[in-house]
Amino acid sequence: MTEIKIHEVGLRDGLQIEKQTVPLEKKIAWVESLLEAGIEMIQLGSFVNPERVPQMADTDKLFAHFNEKGKKTASAVLSGLVLNEKGLERGMACGVDMFCMGVSASDTHSRKNTGKSTEDAVGQIIAMAQAALKAHKRTQVSIQSAFGCGFEGPIPAERVLSIVDKYLAAGIRNISLADTAGHATPPRVESLYADILKRDGKVELACHFHNTYGLGLANCYAALKTGVKYFESALGGLGGCPFTKVAAGNVCTEDLVHSLQRQGLALEIDLEKLLETARDLGRFFDRELPGFILKAGSIVNFRKAQ
Amino acid sequence: MTEIKIHEVGLRDGLQIEKQTVPLEKKIAWVESLLEAGIEMIQLGSFVNPERVPQMADTDKLFAHFNEKGKKTASAVLSGLVLNEKGLERGMACGVDMFCMGVSASDTHSRKNTGKSTEDAVGQIIAMAQAALKAHKRTQVSIQSAFGCGFEGPIPAERVLSIVDKYLAAGIRNISLADTAGHATPPRVESLYADILKRDGKVELACHFHNTYGLGLANCYAALKTGVKYFESALGGLGGCPFTKVAAGNVCTEDLVHSLQRQGLALEIDLEKLLETARDLGRFFDRELPGFILKAGSIVNFRKAQ
Repeated sequence: MTEIKIHEVGLRDGLQIEKQTVPLEKKIAWVESLLEAGIEMIQLGSFVNPERVPQMADTDKLFAHFNEKGKKTASAVLSGLVLNEKGLERGMACGVDMFCMGVSASDTHSRKNTGKSTEDAVGQIIAMAQAALKAHKRTQVSIQSAFGCGFEGPIPAERVLSIVDKYLAAGIRNISLADTAGHATPPRVESLYADILKRDGKVELACHFHNTYGLGLANCYAALKTGVKYFESALGGLGGCPFTKVAAGNVCTEDLVHSLQRQGLALEIDLEKLLETARDLGRFFDRELPGFILKAGSIVNFRKAQ
Repeated sequence: MTEIKIHEVGLRDGLQIEKQTVPLEKKIAWVESLLEAGIEMIQLGSFVNPERVPQMADTDKLFAHFNEKGKKTASAVLSGLVLNEKGLERGMACGVDMFCMGVSASDTHSRKNTGKSTEDAVGQIIAMAQAALKAHKRTQVSIQSAFGCGFEGPIPAERVLSIVDKYLAAGIRNISLADTAGHATPPRVESLYADILKRDGKVELACHFHNTYGLGLANCYAALKTGVKYFESALGGLGGCPFTKVAAGNVCTEDLVHSLQRQGLALEIDLEKLLETARDLGRFFDRELPGFILKAGSIVNFRKAQ
């Protein structure tokens, strides 16, 4: 069985859509708790225009803090999302361990998000990824809207695979498929990852699902079965927009960990510590977060339950 | 691909734990809507002591209503849950199409629920099922707590399979596994159903999952893959106890149908009509039900999305 890695993205994909900006000290405390809980891969934020996304304005400071001596464990990998060359420069300057960057397989989504067509965006992202790799940085490229798009609807597998082909041809082998709109279903997940592995059996696969239609964990299981190793999720199920009726959060980290642990995986993670942190998030935002284990509690002796 | 059947159990497993008793006329209207939506298998209620469970006191009247000429379609199968011989008699008298009955694989759960050990309960249920079959009634036997128990924790597969063996030896081949406590995980689901099919490849398999830990749909996918044909679910994700913090509802019917339709299954069901009915349930109970599609809406053109 592949060793599973949880990549916590709540501080980026969760916080970026919250109305309430989180103070730097609070972010530091949450990252410290996550590290204590044994989550070794954490996305601290994105490098975007602070005027457009004020929630991410302190990303550089957050990295600088954890790059001070003794502030993180040796095995910790702190990632940052970059959208353009300027972001990459900022990330290099403040000590990002792993760069994440991507394009949308949906042309409409791509244009709305970046002002560029998918094709133009792929060229830019590949150049940025190669620069990061040249600087000996861990680098992950993603394909957003890989399973469907809120604007365009169905996204043909061929369109996703043609981007994968370009990534592979450029020598980039750490690839994440992101289900931005929550459209993925387990059969689609299985077939798309299998198609990628047919192209290159050694590619490192990551997944990023949203629980819009209740299929988040089902899609994680499907991804797990195909050999995906990195699971991007958010504490408490943060993400999506709390100001609409759409419950479109990320897959919830503690729900995913609970479920993995019940089958003997990810046992190095301290679930109770994670839950404590998620509860603190709920207190901070003063609302009930969508996570299930937060409400139901973890199953007593679940580690013996398999 | 097996033809999938949704077995709506919300009127029984959902309503039985609600504080607010639903008037007969409302139940009739919901069943009519479900039939109109193309849900052909509906559990109208249980035959239990009306003093203990007043929400189920009008079960006989509900069956009598739908047995009046022209009140149900020819293909409709209205099921009733029976717990003992008295319930079976009542069900025979009011025209139940399909009898459901079961035992708990957890001795503690069995004793708390029925005052009998699992072993004693199996003997009683087999005798009742044989009587129902002799009367040419469709009959489904279940094993509750088949994947774990809130009191006992893990339930060994052998204990479940030894009950299956007794059912099969008694000539009963329509078997449902119920995950009363929500402890099931996809790998357990796959292996347990596969073990049953190894014993008898022609057994008709049903599943009944609760979404306590967010794995309801993931478990349905696992069941679907092993060849399970009948899926017990509840509109709006009713079920569980709304008076505790535990979100322990049944798998939500419209979420399940949405997910199945996205892979080309259960297309005969009118999802919009289902959603309309679920919204009416929410209005009646005056609270937000746990279903995802109720909040997110169905995916536009999702039928083309695969």
